[in-house]
Amino acid sequence: MFHGNTKKIVVPNKREKEILLNQKGVSFWLTGLPGSGKTTIAKILEEELFNNNILAKLIDGDIIRSEINTDLGYSISDRTENIRRAATISKMFNDCGIVVINCFISPTQNIRSLAKEIIGSENFYEIFINCSLETCEQRDPKGMYKKARKGEVKNFTGISSIYEKPQKADLIIDTEQLSIEESVKKVFDFVVLKTNLKA
Amino acid sequence: MFHGNTKKIVVPNKREKEILLNQKGVSFWLTGLPGSGKTTIAKILEEELFNNNILAKLIDGDIIRSEINTDLGYSISDRTENIRRAATISKMFNDCGIVVINCFISPTQNIRSLAKEIIGSENFYEIFINCSLETCEQRDPKGMYKKARKGEVKNFTGISSIYEKPQKADLIIDTEQLSIEESVKKVFDFVVLKTNLKA
Repeated sequence: MFHGNTKKIVVPNKREKEILLNQKGVSFWLTGLPGSGKTTIAKILEEELFNNNILAKLIDGDIIRSEINTDLGYSISDRTENIRRAATISKMFNDCGIVVINCFISPTQNIRSLAKEIIGSENFYEIFINCSLETCEQRDPKGMYKKARKGEVKNFTGISSIYEKPQKADLIIDTEQLSIEESVKKVFDFVVLKTNLKA
Repeated sequence: MFHGNTKKIVVPNKREKEILLNQKGVSFWLTGLPGSGKTTIAKILEEELFNNNILAKLIDGDIIRSEINTDLGYSISDRTENIRRAATISKMFNDCGIVVINCFISPTQNIRSLAKEIIGSENFYEIFINCSLETCEQRDPKGMYKKARKGEVKNFTGISSIYEKPQKADLIIDTEQLSIEESVKKVFDFVVLKTNLKA
């Protein structure tokens, strides 16, 4: 036998890691149409949080697809599996005391509910990055709307695939009305509040 | 347009997060036969590291399989995909400054090379948890060797699937000779050295 001390092993739990980091390990799930501003907000947010000693991990749909989920496409069932794995990874980070900023179109209520269920409702905040389809299509930062209109991209959310607006988001950011700075500020204040270990 | 300040977004990088945490975000890859002692060592190690303010994430083969990789079996190609995803997740943690302790049988040189390539050779340390097949089979902590001998479990490493010993491990822990405490102490000292930001 692999002999030795038989005292019970106590692997450090989420709470203990949170105390070490002085923050709550929770996930902020940014949902919205392509071009609504999710990733832009998330990147500046991560920077601002870091400048305030809050350690966050940005988990972005595009990166998850190119690195982990190389086997998945854009059908609703593949989108669901994509979100299932991403949420599971988010939970791993939360369990380690890390704040997660998720950027996923996550177009349906079912998909977002699945993410919430996996991460745990007590650790999950849904943030709706709200912007009209018309404005998102005008912005078209990656030229994807243009391709979708031409039929060159299939299952494109807003054009050839549905987007169900969140009904009970914890926070709504209207990027048609707010500037980038104002949007980030609003999310930042919310995150600081929700990650405060003493609150 | 989503208007606002156009200054370049500077997402905090690995080094900056390491400085915040005062540790290097590197991975320690424990490989060895089933029953060699990988998970036992890893759990106590995580606890000891935490007691020394080193934040680590234990990523265990069994947990990854039951939570993320529910679609994968035990063929060599499924094992490879299992490791590919696990290594990618490890890299995500390392990029966030977190130390990762990996417990994976990871039976072939190819599989371990893949993990090293994904994580990055500068952030990867291979630790061979060495124990003879005979002793592992005697320990049989989960009763899996018994099942494998009866043919009830297929592709079982050591019995019906190969295990190639590492040729150039960064550290070898001989759990046939060392006690649990001695094994953990040896890995702990190695980890403290390799995660020291000032070294």
